[in-house]
Amino acid sequence: MGLDHIGFDYANAMAEAIGRENGINENELSKFAEGEGKKAAMALAQAQAAGSLAFADAPFDREMAEESKSLAEELHGKYENVVIIGIGGSALGCTTIHSALLHPMHNFMSHDERGGHPRWFVLDNVDPDITSALIEHLDLSKALFVITSKSGGTPETMANFAVVHERLVNLLGKSEAASRFVMITDPEKGFLRELVKRVGLHSLPIPTKLGGRFSVLCSVGMFPAALCGIDIEAFLAGARKMVELSLNATNPMESPANLAAMVYYLADTQKGKNINVMFPYSSRLTAFSDWFVQLWGESLGKEKNRAGEVISVGPTPLPAIGATDQHSQNQLFMEGPADKVITFIDVERFGSEVLIPDDFKSDPGIGYLAGHTLTELIRTEKLGTELALKERKRPTCSITLPHIDAEVMGQLLMMFMLATAFSGELYNINAFIQPGVDLGKKITKERLSAQ
Amino acid sequence: MGLDHIGFDYANAMAEAIGRENGINENELSKFAEGEGKKAAMALAQAQAAGSLAFADAPFDREMAEESKSLAEELHGKYENVVIIGIGGSALGCTTIHSALLHPMHNFMSHDERGGHPRWFVLDNVDPDITSALIEHLDLSKALFVITSKSGGTPETMANFAVVHERLVNLLGKSEAASRFVMITDPEKGFLRELVKRVGLHSLPIPTKLGGRFSVLCSVGMFPAALCGIDIEAFLAGARKMVELSLNATNPMESPANLAAMVYYLADTQKGKNINVMFPYSSRLTAFSDWFVQLWGESLGKEKNRAGEVISVGPTPLPAIGATDQHSQNQLFMEGPADKVITFIDVERFGSEVLIPDDFKSDPGIGYLAGHTLTELIRTEKLGTELALKERKRPTCSITLPHIDAEVMGQLLMMFMLATAFSGELYNINAFIQPGVDLGKKITKERLSAQ
Repeated sequence: MGLDHIGFDYANAMAEAIGRENGINENELSKFAEGEGKKAAMALAQAQAAGSLAFADAPFDREMAEESKSLAEELHGKYENVVIIGIGGSALGCTTIHSALLHPMHNFMSHDERGGHPRWFVLDNVDPDITSALIEHLDLSKALFVITSKSGGTPETMANFAVVHERLVNLLGKSEAASRFVMITDPEKGFLRELVKRVGLHSLPIPTKLGGRFSVLCSVGMFPAALCGIDIEAFLAGARKMVELSLNATNPMESPANLAAMVYYLADTQKGKNINVMFPYSSRLTAFSDWFVQLWGESLGKEKNRAGEVISVGPTPLPAIGATDQHSQNQLFMEGPADKVITFIDVERFGSEVLIPDDFKSDPGIGYLAGHTLTELIRTEKLGTELALKERKRPTCSITLPHIDAEVMGQLLMMFMLATAFSGELYNINAFIQPGVDLGKKITKERLSAQ
Repeated sequence: MGLDHIGFDYANAMAEAIGRENGINENELSKFAEGEGKKAAMALAQAQAAGSLAFADAPFDREMAEESKSLAEELHGKYENVVIIGIGGSALGCTTIHSALLHPMHNFMSHDERGGHPRWFVLDNVDPDITSALIEHLDLSKALFVITSKSGGTPETMANFAVVHERLVNLLGKSEAASRFVMITDPEKGFLRELVKRVGLHSLPIPTKLGGRFSVLCSVGMFPAALCGIDIEAFLAGARKMVELSLNATNPMESPANLAAMVYYLADTQKGKNINVMFPYSSRLTAFSDWFVQLWGESLGKEKNRAGEVISVGPTPLPAIGATDQHSQNQLFMEGPADKVITFIDVERFGSEVLIPDDFKSDPGIGYLAGHTLTELIRTEKLGTELALKERKRPTCSITLPHIDAEVMGQLLMMFMLATAFSGELYNINAFIQPGVDLGKKITKERLSAQ
């Protein structure tokens, strides 16, 4: 199996480290893996063989990769700004990738510093202040708009599209305006696809069986990434590595994704840890935490029938960021109710190195910082928090990234999509639907239609 | 009392609306207000009279306001960029105010479009990639650095300060570099204050009794706000209004802050709703949710002694943003475990108005959007989600803002600081300390000192 993939360290979630009240017993975990775990793994393997695990097939889709790269190449250098219009899964994956992999000051760089790649913006709400600020202050004549909606009829996305489209038509005329859109939508049906057929716009397909929150590895995430110069081949290779590792594992304990799912499930159902904190020690992974929140919450927060009774299941995902949230949420994690399992993400090598100079070496309070690097500081802070939580008998897990690049991010995102699907089997719910949101949409539509 | 202040609508958290299993009984709330509520209100009034409710005194501090304004005026027009270096409460308040009140494209505007006010950046982590990106790509010769640390020795803040200071000295020489800093710190002691005394830097004091997460209304939040052109007098006036409303109320039900605290407390302790979701329907309030997370979690997540036994208390705050998170977290809120109480924030009038054109009026799926404004859409979505959650018997509360401006934001921030202090009394814990974070800090310091 080698060591060239990220792993999942769960030692500090176990009874051996933090006691039986809060920790999982190692033997019970092994037994669970042999029983429920193997059953879940088999169910997923069957689903994949039957072609219904679309997200795990996505990184193997050569046609998708080629199409995304070739359209990105065709449009390269032509635009100063790209605006992704989408909401939920149609925005979060893209934001995660760009935040993690583009230079943190990308949007403040010149055209040449950016390598001719566009600045990027995401319009993922219908807040009139934001939409209006963007269309008033961005140079629209140099902007490309990527409209992402699986159904082709998401109200928020369609509203922003209509607003932007009208502006562009007024500014550039109908046919030139049409060239400024890339539609990422269902290959056959829906309003956007019909528009593509009628007007002849740039477009890329979203595989029919692929739901929004699992769509990051198809054109939804890969085209905007390629457009901004991210190596999507490396990204997809990382994702494939994780798929192979998981779906070929004879024991679910050998797959980091399945192992994580089992630890979280037992922490929730046996130890009452129904809040999953995602706590990366890297500002570039802030959006990753938000992506995880949607993936985990929307997939696992479900009603189900058990012995004729309707019950609600699903852990609540909570985003955090280290070291920052040591000054914000850590007091609650340390002294508040023992209802959380925390997952740290630790980065071994950052893209830059910064030395703390020794100007205040003689100060008794902070002199100890002098001569260390920021990497040493942030990683030691993670370790300090981890050990302190262990001392308090609060369960934590840890994922170590060798560095943050496209290949590692591909592994990480696929790991959590696989863990989510595996958890769906453990909770015995359908992780791929979201029936709970329909009622609110219906009420909204009725009210607006009546006015 | 008039209607010129924001209110707290709790109707949909009550048994009358959502049933006894999940909802609070109106009579029980009144009785609780008469008993525990009045006791808590009295305790806070006494604390204020004794001068130990520093955050509620802050908006009455004329000297602070004048000092912040006058330093902002002195420095006006001289800098293209301001970088706030701080962490936790020293960064979140400032980020909240700037995100809510500055133009969403402020940082992409020209000097003149910004009215001569600087672009703003916040360095609130020790991620080497972020610190290095900022110092490599910002024009440091035109940047002002605001270093905020109550103790004057916060490791993350001091590390970033040392790095930036060395750069500026190399670039501009020692004495010119010194002019580029504003130190916001304890009036008397700590490393930063000593430095101010020795070198003669710009500085503003943080009142001795004012803790980080309650410091937004002193120079910590007000100086960076004034520097960027925000009307801090209106901000402070809004905060004073909320203080007067709360601390003069004869019945705690008449204060929106105290009422919110009581509803949340009863939802947690009587109905098992131990997760507080903050769900504003405005992208400009995204950072407000993060500010609330720190305030609520760090203040109320505490151990306490009860009848000789140590127990953990404290609800878990969860940030959300509408309408975006309808596509991310709402499935969990609707169908997942009934362990949450949700607080919507609804904005009546946005700063801009955007009409959805009728290009696709004839489409059966999305035609109903045509002719509506984005304000109508986002507010109707909030209503749709609220009604759907009510149908599902999930408790929700609602705060309506007439619009987002400095005065309203002053009210809103003070409302939640008062609610936090009031909740501290109800949970019978000290809301103003954070002993749980000391162990992690100690371990970090020991490890770094040993290397």
